[in-house]
Amino acid sequence: MSLVCLITDFGTDDTYVAEMKLALARLGGADLRWIDGTHAVAPGDIAAASWVLQRLWTQGKAGTVYLVVVDPGVGSSRPAVAARADARWFVGPGNGLAAFLRDRENLEVWHLDRAEAPPRLPVSTTFHGRDVFAPAAAHLASGGDPALLGRLAAARDLGPAPTDAPVDGLGRVVWIDRFGNLITDIVRGALADGTELMIAGRPVVGPVDCYAAAAPGDLIWYWGSQDTLEVAVRDGHAARRLGAEVGLVIGLAAT
Amino acid sequence: MSLVCLITDFGTDDTYVAEMKLALARLGGADLRWIDGTHAVAPGDIAAASWVLQRLWTQGKAGTVYLVVVDPGVGSSRPAVAARADARWFVGPGNGLAAFLRDRENLEVWHLDRAEAPPRLPVSTTFHGRDVFAPAAAHLASGGDPALLGRLAAARDLGPAPTDAPVDGLGRVVWIDRFGNLITDIVRGALADGTELMIAGRPVVGPVDCYAAAAPGDLIWYWGSQDTLEVAVRDGHAARRLGAEVGLVIGLAAT
Amino acid sequence: MSLVCLITDFGTDDTYVAEMKLALARLGGADLRWIDGTHAVAPGDIAAASWVLQRLWTQGKAGTVYLVVVDPGVGSSRPAVAARADARWFVGPGNGLAAFLRDRENLEVWHLDRAEAPPRLPVSTTFHGRDVFAPAAAHLASGGDPALLGRLAAARDLGPAPTDAPVDGLGRVVWIDRFGNLITDIVRGALADGTELMIAGRPVVGPVDCYAAAAPGDLIWYWGSQDTLEVAVRDGHAARRLGAEVGLVIGLAAT
Repeated sequence: MSLVCLITDFGTDDTYVAEMKLALARLGGADLRWIDGTHAVAPGDIAAASWVLQRLWTQGKAGTVYLVVVDPGVGSSRPAVAARADARWFVGPGNGLAAFLRDRENLEVWHLDRAEAPPRLPVSTTFHGRDVFAPAAAHLASGGDPALLGRLAAARDLGPAPTDAPVDGLGRVVWIDRFGNLITDIVRGALADGTELMIAGRPVVGPVDCYAAAAPGDLIWYWGSQDTLEVAVRDGHAARRLGAEVGLVIGLAAT
Repeated sequence: MSLVCLITDFGTDDTYVAEMKLALARLGGADLRWIDGTHAVAPGDIAAASWVLQRLWTQGKAGTVYLVVVDPGVGSSRPAVAARADARWFVGPGNGLAAFLRDRENLEVWHLDRAEAPPRLPVSTTFHGRDVFAPAAAHLASGGDPALLGRLAAARDLGPAPTDAPVDGLGRVVWIDRFGNLITDIVRGALADGTELMIAGRPVVGPVDCYAAAAPGDLIWYWGSQDTLEVAVRDGHAARRLGAEVGLVIGLAAT
Repeated sequence: MSLVCLITDFGTDDTYVAEMKLALARLGGADLRWIDGTHAVAPGDIAAASWVLQRLWTQGKAGTVYLVVVDPGVGSSRPAVAARADARWFVGPGNGLAAFLRDRENLEVWHLDRAEAPPRLPVSTTFHGRDVFAPAAAHLASGGDPALLGRLAAARDLGPAPTDAPVDGLGRVVWIDRFGNLITDIVRGALADGTELMIAGRPVVGPVDCYAAAAPGDLIWYWGSQDTLEVAVRDGHAARRLGAEVGLVIGLAAT
């Protein structure tokens, strides 16, 4: 089984995701499968899409192609690229989505600039996801030679990292899930157990081992399933309780 | 083709469903497929998830694995289980989701408690859906031996049935669909044709044979596609018309 | 790989789409795949579903079965049909969804009226999508003989085209996407480059080559990825800006 994982800001109401999958099915091998990573990235939010990609990157088996289309600059001069690292593939615009791979020793990058390369499709000026990236993903998922897609590129062609480290504080909220939990970019080891955090002016106690260890209504923090810090209210909705949004900076409580 | 049908309360905006599928693809056989049952169960609503499972249970071909993760007690003492009945599998928490199987003569239940069992993954305290249940589902869908996942359990380890029969009335509304139709747990045979029902204080006439047999705007009942009673407004939205919500009790009209 | 592309007005919260896929998996071959075209067609909106079908029709590889269930007349006298044209299949109600195929020289149409035909399932009066159309789609995707499903029908059994040409103006808005872009039924060649369009009382300039060619906030038109005219605001939401809805007529600016 060869695998393509799609991450976009297209939503699922429109036909765009289907058009990419129809291209995958037309151009890929008989054993090709696809998984919807998410299509709910806010329109044009490169930082959020990059976070999703990093989260899923290690979870796909070797050979997985991550087809990521969040591309506010479609039709402009940003390059179209494919990259291989950690035995996995990134295919998408070189606008920073995969900038976290820039320092990997095993990184290789290609421009998707060979118009004559197989597979070839008419190129619309507005839908590279279907006409450029999906064909490249099908080609690579099936074990095709990346050199057929274009010339070698450099790590910098992946584009600049979409966010900077926060000036003040430990990290930021990078995603808010359906349950209202705040997921941050603070990695395990960045702070000692028992540290009291301050979020939106309120103290949050942790880490707890599991939701069930807290009382209903408690505001808690814990190391989430990806080993980054998360904030939740047991049987409640932390984002609404705290008025929190993506980007909120998290700091230490005054001591 | 081996098949896994996923039912969760995760929604589809977050990456949780994708993480479960990436685990299925990594650990399952080359012929594994998955179908999204629904991910729109209200957070923590075990009764609704159990209803979805019962509805889909007989529709999957023999061997289908139903991977159901609605798990408000994750990390607590509720067991993780697999069960086989009717030549199909349930994998999920033993919190009542599959309690409807307790009286099946062909029921077998296992605890998912062998940490050393293949397939093995690091176990996060917060995402058993990805780290415990999906690996077990991949194992069983591929024809693996359930005894490798843990020791035998009892029917009671499936947990208690999530709802009781209504004290007064024929049954309840268990789901409201996109069209505003009310789906109940009243099975065919429970009432005679021509019975006049009373819902939210209004009489409802039926059964009708099909939507087209009613006039636009009529409030009607009929035997739905799963042989349970449903209420609809032709070319309208019954739930809004009646102010109905899941759990509403349905009774006979006074005679 | 044989392929079924599903287009419905069922949404994805309910179990209806899953029930159709469980039928496909039960009745189709081991190499059957499915793609969600969209399930977000407004309830009963035959014109919108037909537009989606036309958009995706040429994008599926040869042999693709388009399983389209937008069926406000389910249970009434509208026929259930399968049609082959352009080496692709349509399966669904004969209510106009596939009326655009009526003039194809290579068109063949069948009634789905052989109750005894394989595959057979109990037929609910309310869910033909699962009980009639999905089994027929599985049969055809696997290379089955359409004559086993029913007798030959005529092009008119596809039903009447769902919309008429606009009385006044160049065309209509047929879809509004997640980004607020207006997609119309005006095909390339229908108007000269440099034409100034009038939409909702405002002039719109185009065609531009790509979003990046416009300044942020500009109201522009361009030839979209399906070679029909689209209207957008760069880094904005054209539908909200213009108060536009599906059906809006687009005319020439006064000269």
